[in-house]
Amino acid sequence: MASGISLPRLKTHIETLATYGRNPDGRGITRSCWSPPHEEARQWLLGKMKEAGLETRVDPAGNTFGVLPGDGAAVLTGSHIDTVPEGGPLDGALGVLAGLECLQTIREARLPVRRPLAVVAWSDEEGRYGSLFGSRAFTGKLDAAQIPHLRALDGESLVDAMARAGYEAARAPDARCDPRALHAYVELHIEQGPHLETARLPIGLVEGIVGIRRNRLIFVGEPDHAGTTPMAWRKDAFLAACEYALKAREHIVKKGSGRSVTNFGRIELAPGVSNIVPARAQLMQEMRELDGRILARLDRECVALARAVARRRGLRVVVETVSRTEPARCAPRVMEAVQAACEKLRLAYKRMPSGAGHDAQNLASVTASGMLFIPSRGGRSHRPDEMSDWKAIGRGANALLHTLLSLAG
Amino acid sequence: MASGISLPRLKTHIETLATYGRNPDGRGITRSCWSPPHEEARQWLLGKMKEAGLETRVDPAGNTFGVLPGDGAAVLTGSHIDTVPEGGPLDGALGVLAGLECLQTIREARLPVRRPLAVVAWSDEEGRYGSLFGSRAFTGKLDAAQIPHLRALDGESLVDAMARAGYEAARAPDARCDPRALHAYVELHIEQGPHLETARLPIGLVEGIVGIRRNRLIFVGEPDHAGTTPMAWRKDAFLAACEYALKAREHIVKKGSGRSVTNFGRIELAPGVSNIVPARAQLMQEMRELDGRILARLDRECVALARAVARRRGLRVVVETVSRTEPARCAPRVMEAVQAACEKLRLAYKRMPSGAGHDAQNLASVTASGMLFIPSRGGRSHRPDEMSDWKAIGRGANALLHTLLSLAG
Repeated sequence: MASGISLPRLKTHIETLATYGRNPDGRGITRSCWSPPHEEARQWLLGKMKEAGLETRVDPAGNTFGVLPGDGAAVLTGSHIDTVPEGGPLDGALGVLAGLECLQTIREARLPVRRPLAVVAWSDEEGRYGSLFGSRAFTGKLDAAQIPHLRALDGESLVDAMARAGYEAARAPDARCDPRALHAYVELHIEQGPHLETARLPIGLVEGIVGIRRNRLIFVGEPDHAGTTPMAWRKDAFLAACEYALKAREHIVKKGSGRSVTNFGRIELAPGVSNIVPARAQLMQEMRELDGRILARLDRECVALARAVARRRGLRVVVETVSRTEPARCAPRVMEAVQAACEKLRLAYKRMPSGAGHDAQNLASVTASGMLFIPSRGGRSHRPDEMSDWKAIGRGANALLHTLLSLAG
Repeated sequence: MASGISLPRLKTHIETLATYGRNPDGRGITRSCWSPPHEEARQWLLGKMKEAGLETRVDPAGNTFGVLPGDGAAVLTGSHIDTVPEGGPLDGALGVLAGLECLQTIREARLPVRRPLAVVAWSDEEGRYGSLFGSRAFTGKLDAAQIPHLRALDGESLVDAMARAGYEAARAPDARCDPRALHAYVELHIEQGPHLETARLPIGLVEGIVGIRRNRLIFVGEPDHAGTTPMAWRKDAFLAACEYALKAREHIVKKGSGRSVTNFGRIELAPGVSNIVPARAQLMQEMRELDGRILARLDRECVALARAVARRRGLRVVVETVSRTEPARCAPRVMEAVQAACEKLRLAYKRMPSGAGHDAQNLASVTASGMLFIPSRGGRSHRPDEMSDWKAIGRGANALLHTLLSLAG
């Protein structure tokens, strides 16, 4: 029988980390990067890494490493310990603590590895100051000129938040890695969707991470009096945005890959009072798709659709790109290692894209990068009741262990 | 030839009042009730009333009167001197200053009147603390128990705002009038819509003021991850609100009176971030119609429509009544006087409803109440470029003069 991780120890670690930033009244966990609960959790994690016999290091971007030395280029695993506001106990924490558990198991059981192995908790994956902050710094994607201007939604600047935690924001780009020192990166994560649970499969073999487009669409009409202006005369920016949102959703469902998704999570109307026709509707649209050509086509088609809706209604529309990340294919080297681990452990799996962004997509630009998923209960994530089964967590951690043994062997 | 008002004097008064609360950079006039610019404007108005030989009085609700004494029940005219934020120079100001001009003309030219005549500027017509505040107090519609709780959108309490202006909010209900002292009320106003300009007619003879329903519709879905949840699984509260808004608009256009209108001026999404499916969309809907039975039917039908949209999408919807005012028919006595004045002055007119709310609708509950409109340039109102032509203003003021002479004669 294959060697295995200690599920009781991993469970204790997951439950302990979940106490940092726990909100009262069942409102989940709020552990934003650089916040006091996050920094306390980081200190706890560094202690656990040391207990596991790992060498520890925190880089200038706040990425926290635990290293098992070896020869040649390193194999990295990890995820993040920050959470969304009112989030759950597994998003990020699972990948870091399962990675720690694997390295501790390898060291204690003297399992055969040649390469250095490291577990890492990347900074600010959830993007209080722009998503995937730490892995962007590590992979040289951070724009140093932007750092002084980064602010959270509540107005706190990154410079102040990092200073409070004992870091100098201007130095974050110094976290940039030397790609020659890296052999592979593999990340274990909950699926955050319903596919694995629905298919009753323990492991998702991630083929790639979707690209994400975020556009701001600003429909501009006229602020007419809502009582005295005939309905046919109005240039209502809100109704134009409504028509566009419904049509864009249908377009992406019908003309996308079948797995393409879109969301409209924010809208702001101006002047925003009940008795004035909305003159301005600012709509945030997000589109996700694994195939970069399909994503680019959907983006273009949605812009054309917005213009057609606006024109027909006698309005103007301005479309601004807010952010774009390109899809990242997982590396064959890592996918084969995950597949071999599943076969060894007799775990059924399915190939699937990741609909959520992950640090693994940044790592893909500097090394062979990949991911494996375990089921999310009810497909739920980013909420207090985010969970998986402990047995499923154990299966995922063991699949990660054998993936690491294969990559570092 | 009929006696007439002094258009140069009225023009000077309109232009002078427009300097109180004028914003820089062409951003119109902001003269919210009880604000320092409003209180300075009130003092200026009181001075002009005294110059015109009127007796002045300010009641506990801040309604400002200029009175020409006489015998029997009084004839009132007026409007308001507060504005919406970044409003124009005529909404309200026209009715007050044309009324003042008429009384000054009547006094100076010793035109034959028997009854007392008064011009009044009603408090807070635009509703910083609930619309038509002053005329509600005057007609006994103010809920005294609510007064301590009234707050503006920026959080300032009515109690504080009135105290700063030298008034005691708790005493506002004492402004209640004795209906036996009133013979009629007539208000001159800009149309705030395009009908008169389009028809090239100088005068609108108002048949009644529309009733207004304001409902808050809260669509409740699920806050799913916007990347990992399949499109077909989502319970998107925003898209439900979009579908409802478009369908409700069509329903009201097709099944209303032909003059029924609706507006969606505010929407708020929760959690309101781009990567989470909106779990909650709170939509404000306003409906206006002159026929109270049609308005009640449209209200019921829209609630049913919202429930059908929510049900089909697997969401819930809660509909809350925010406010409702019933339609107010104008009094035959006043309409006949306006009609006679137009005929005497050879001014063409059309009968029309008022799509906007006005103090005249409150006065309708205590006396014979009516209105006349002049054209709004481009149908525009509640914005800096709100205007009419000076000749049109002169025609309207003269029509008001002869209406007052007829009612008070």
